[in-house]
Amino acid sequence: MVARNSNLAKLPGGYLFPEIGRRRKACQEQNPGAKIISLGIGNTTEPLTPHITDGLTKAAAGLGTPAGYSGYGDEQGFDSLRQAIASKLYNNLVTADEVLTSDGAKCDIGRLQLLFGNQVTVAVQDPSYPVYVDGSVIMGATGDFDQASMQYAGITYMPCLPENQFFPDLTKLPRTDLIYFCSPNNPTGAVATKAQLKTLVDFALANRSIIIFDSAYSAYIADPELPRSIFEIEGARRCAIEVSSFSKPVGFTGLRLGWTVCPKDLVYDDGSSVLKDWNRIMTTVFNGASNVVQHGGLAAVDDQGLAEMAATVGYYMENAAIIEQCLADMGIEHYGGHNAPYIWARFPGQKSWDVFSRILNEAFVVCTPGSGFGPAGEGFIRFSSFGHRADVIEATERLKKLSF
Amino acid sequence: MVARNSNLAKLPGGYLFPEIGRRRKACQEQNPGAKIISLGIGNTTEPLTPHITDGLTKAAAGLGTPAGYSGYGDEQGFDSLRQAIASKLYNNLVTADEVLTSDGAKCDIGRLQLLFGNQVTVAVQDPSYPVYVDGSVIMGATGDFDQASMQYAGITYMPCLPENQFFPDLTKLPRTDLIYFCSPNNPTGAVATKAQLKTLVDFALANRSIIIFDSAYSAYIADPELPRSIFEIEGARRCAIEVSSFSKPVGFTGLRLGWTVCPKDLVYDDGSSVLKDWNRIMTTVFNGASNVVQHGGLAAVDDQGLAEMAATVGYYMENAAIIEQCLADMGIEHYGGHNAPYIWARFPGQKSWDVFSRILNEAFVVCTPGSGFGPAGEGFIRFSSFGHRADVIEATERLKKLSF
Repeated sequence: MVARNSNLAKLPGGYLFPEIGRRRKACQEQNPGAKIISLGIGNTTEPLTPHITDGLTKAAAGLGTPAGYSGYGDEQGFDSLRQAIASKLYNNLVTADEVLTSDGAKCDIGRLQLLFGNQVTVAVQDPSYPVYVDGSVIMGATGDFDQASMQYAGITYMPCLPENQFFPDLTKLPRTDLIYFCSPNNPTGAVATKAQLKTLVDFALANRSIIIFDSAYSAYIADPELPRSIFEIEGARRCAIEVSSFSKPVGFTGLRLGWTVCPKDLVYDDGSSVLKDWNRIMTTVFNGASNVVQHGGLAAVDDQGLAEMAATVGYYMENAAIIEQCLADMGIEHYGGHNAPYIWARFPGQKSWDVFSRILNEAFVVCTPGSGFGPAGEGFIRFSSFGHRADVIEATERLKKLSF
Repeated sequence: MVARNSNLAKLPGGYLFPEIGRRRKACQEQNPGAKIISLGIGNTTEPLTPHITDGLTKAAAGLGTPAGYSGYGDEQGFDSLRQAIASKLYNNLVTADEVLTSDGAKCDIGRLQLLFGNQVTVAVQDPSYPVYVDGSVIMGATGDFDQASMQYAGITYMPCLPENQFFPDLTKLPRTDLIYFCSPNNPTGAVATKAQLKTLVDFALANRSIIIFDSAYSAYIADPELPRSIFEIEGARRCAIEVSSFSKPVGFTGLRLGWTVCPKDLVYDDGSSVLKDWNRIMTTVFNGASNVVQHGGLAAVDDQGLAEMAATVGYYMENAAIIEQCLADMGIEHYGGHNAPYIWARFPGQKSWDVFSRILNEAFVVCTPGSGFGPAGEGFIRFSSFGHRADVIEATERLKKLSF
């Protein structure tokens, strides 16, 4: 008989967000009349803006015509879209052939596992987006999960806490092959400064490590001093791959469109090109983002689309301000919510899942338990600012009735 | 420094279809005035049909409205779509929760690598769709490529030739954990009978192997006696996963929508559920097929959509008949083209790439060299019936001027 993949056996329980979904469902069944509001998963809620909807709809209708129909395209995406991303979103710091579009950042992180294989060592921010760790476990790049430390053997956890301004003390860290780093950060909402990222890049160059930089929330950076891409940092082209997405800037969470940037200057120890292998992965186990969605992406990065993107981001950041004010009024220690759509609230001496359950069952509000993002997230709760305004207001009014 | 993934180093040259693209481009540059016609890659060319276009376009427009907008959905897809696939395409031989929709069969084959890991042994039909082998190599489930045999160590190649009616002699094969099997076959166009598939299922059950059955071309089966799904065969629920797609039946090659069926009865040697692990993979490194495209898929499987699907399939099968007649007129030995959109032509004593080059440079027609599908494909050429009618006719007229 076929043996179960031992790497999958290492994963305890379910993936964080399906687990939250199960608990929400159970709460709804126990309270059939309750209107549960989600400030949990970072799921966009506002309709697509007019120009982007138009780009998408015209492309869909066009597929029914000889002139507008297209079948397989290049797996890396339309040249026009790759060009537009390089010029409009990266100010030509990267070139179009270094941009590979995809069906999203989560999926790209999965494919990056196949690129690097199971012989690499890995470091992650703690807390961090669960897919970096879970993907590495599935690939076999880690050891077993230790229930006491809540860590996997073979992964270096870089604590990111208020006490270190959410930036790890790199001098205390061992060398790893890969360093996953997310800024603006999910879940803490922290945004690394240029000086911090320079430290990170220098560390990677000195150690000859590769940074996998997740900039999926970069559109939420309003402060012009804060870097939106790792490639704003000198030297990054020799040590970083960037993963990013249209999901959060323009609400493509359900449509699925993202991209990676893999610089031509990035090489393995044998001098061979990482981009060449990345292209091989993308052409072998991927078949391109949906053509209709790529047309939507093209609309999102022209002048009108970028203006609409700013409006969408502005809407959610107003939500963030409402949630932040609520937590301030409640006297709860909190971080993020500026230049990032997440607010990271601390509940000293309490367990994240306990706080999650109280908020769910007493306020009918879904949040995300910080411990789901790693051991250093214990005692924290992530609030997402993705939601309808009226729901966010109602959720904060309910939250204010609780005391912690 | 970071070492290159040694599995990627095992892959010689490029993926087959990008390589064909490069040669086509070179030919076009040398012959700027030539109109190159492709009977190569199985890329759909006809516009989407009206009802399916309508479903897609309405969903796209709806995303711009509060009622029609949706963000993340379940990674496995809409319940409605999973239900419709189970009932309309499988006649309820499988249940909706066994159907996981996706962005396509190629991508699912990539994710299946992560499911089964690198400790499995693998058998493939020879010739076969290259992604089974290349995906297994990338995952690390194979040894090195041997230039003499054109085979990877650690993969069992099951020759499928006219001499064995394109069905392997299973009594001569060793046990493997996984058996990739595609019917209607890409590239040979052979369709396995119920009796043949029963032999295959019995072989898998006796060996406790898992069949990964690729039915991406099942809509092309017109003969009611031929099985469209492995799950029409008794016992398959205990030994098979099916991979399939909307690409070829309704022209979603560029839109990206496929599905897998993983039966609840399928277990590992420890008795644990394969479906449970498959769900974990799909929720961790995938984020659902595009919502707009899923709406297109829903339109494709209602009564009007199924009628349009039959018309689309009928169009391409008329092309197949034209190509087949051309090869018959030329006296070239050929197979397939009935119940399958591919025609497999034999050129005894000649190398596939040499024939490919002659056809490209003398007739400006792109086909696919059989050797690209495996060593048993040497001396064969695959002709695809996906193309505009006028182009197919012109291509066959040009082909008739060549002699082999």
